[in-house]
Amino acid sequence: MSRTLTPSRMADRMSDDRSVLDAVLDESLVGYLGISLDEGPLVLPVSYARDGDRLLFHGSTGSHRMRAIAAGAEVCFSVAVMDALKISRTGEGTGMRYRSAVVFGACTRMDEAEKERALEVYLDRYLPGRTAEVRRSTKKELAATMVLSLPIEQWSVKTADGFPSDEPEDIAAGGWAGVVPLRMVWEAPIPNPDLGLGIDVPASVLQLTRNQASGSAS
Amino acid sequence: MSRTLTPSRMADRMSDDRSVLDAVLDESLVGYLGISLDEGPLVLPVSYARDGDRLLFHGSTGSHRMRAIAAGAEVCFSVAVMDALKISRTGEGTGMRYRSAVVFGACTRMDEAEKERALEVYLDRYLPGRTAEVRRSTKKELAATMVLSLPIEQWSVKTADGFPSDEPEDIAAGGWAGVVPLRMVWEAPIPNPDLGLGIDVPASVLQLTRNQASGSAS
Repeated sequence: MSRTLTPSRMADRMSDDRSVLDAVLDESLVGYLGISLDEGPLVLPVSYARDGDRLLFHGSTGSHRMRAIAAGAEVCFSVAVMDALKISRTGEGTGMRYRSAVVFGACTRMDEAEKERALEVYLDRYLPGRTAEVRRSTKKELAATMVLSLPIEQWSVKTADGFPSDEPEDIAAGGWAGVVPLRMVWEAPIPNPDLGLGIDVPASVLQLTRNQASGSAS
Repeated sequence: MSRTLTPSRMADRMSDDRSVLDAVLDESLVGYLGISLDEGPLVLPVSYARDGDRLLFHGSTGSHRMRAIAAGAEVCFSVAVMDALKISRTGEGTGMRYRSAVVFGACTRMDEAEKERALEVYLDRYLPGRTAEVRRSTKKELAATMVLSLPIEQWSVKTADGFPSDEPEDIAAGGWAGVVPLRMVWEAPIPNPDLGLGIDVPASVLQLTRNQASGSAS
């Protein structure tokens, strides 16, 4: 971490534990990629995948914004997982239990040779096991897709957990305090309107809805 | 919208429907506030509340970053709600159903007279009805809290819904395609470890877990 964020006074805990970072990056389904443009800051919600010590982003080669990011502009990538609502006996202490991460750096564009494997990592991150169930990408599909890579070198992670802490006089006043956990749940799959009869839901999709740890915020 | 985002080629649909914007802003529990600093872009996950035609942020008066944002730097505020995983018959077409929003502008710091009501809006956004259940903020608490306001004037909203669309040859190959909806669920409240006996869970908390539309991604 050559550039760390100054923790705000509201921050509960900064961590330099890489496993905490990886858990946040692997659980969140969307990240926020910030770049500084001449006209001001721009923050784009993006899908992404962690591939070991780097983050992968993809998009169309026709996207202006992807090309700007691919040109090596400094970026800040930010994700947060909301775990619970912490409810204090007062308004003041109420907030979220969360884990958040930022990764700073510059993206590089992956070459054609690396792209196919990167897109498989990407697909299996959103739907584990799916790569083995679908055909390989065509050369045309690969050519139309840009894959960017951001090294996980400069990063920071912050965790707010525990319970709200109230002043003795507020505790004595007898109000309730506690935590309401928040969880993300995959619901039953809805078949495509154009799906033929007798086509089974694949194992990857069954596994997603069975294993509610995927995408879970807890 | 004096500054609109150029929709990328991957975008499903841009909208200028303010009700779509408000729904995204009201459903998401966390937003991402981007600023351009000398050393590069910075994207901070933040809690926030929509108060009519403005967004409210709060933080400690001791936070360096809050003070920088309060000084009127151009910001980009971004949120996205993930609604479902769209699963194509190929890797290529797989992605998320989502609704995302960006608001551009500069924040102003709210004065002391406005702060108390703003913090009540903030608290009731996370836990509707909670303001009526807790004591008023003290002068000391108000003094230690900075509330920033960002007008909802320059904004953009993007929606990806529907089902994955495959090429005729991929449909003919007989694979499965469909959508797996994603929902956020509040679980049963956990009382604070320091909670006395016989203190009932308040109505606001009961309502949150009963009304699973709150914080729902669907």
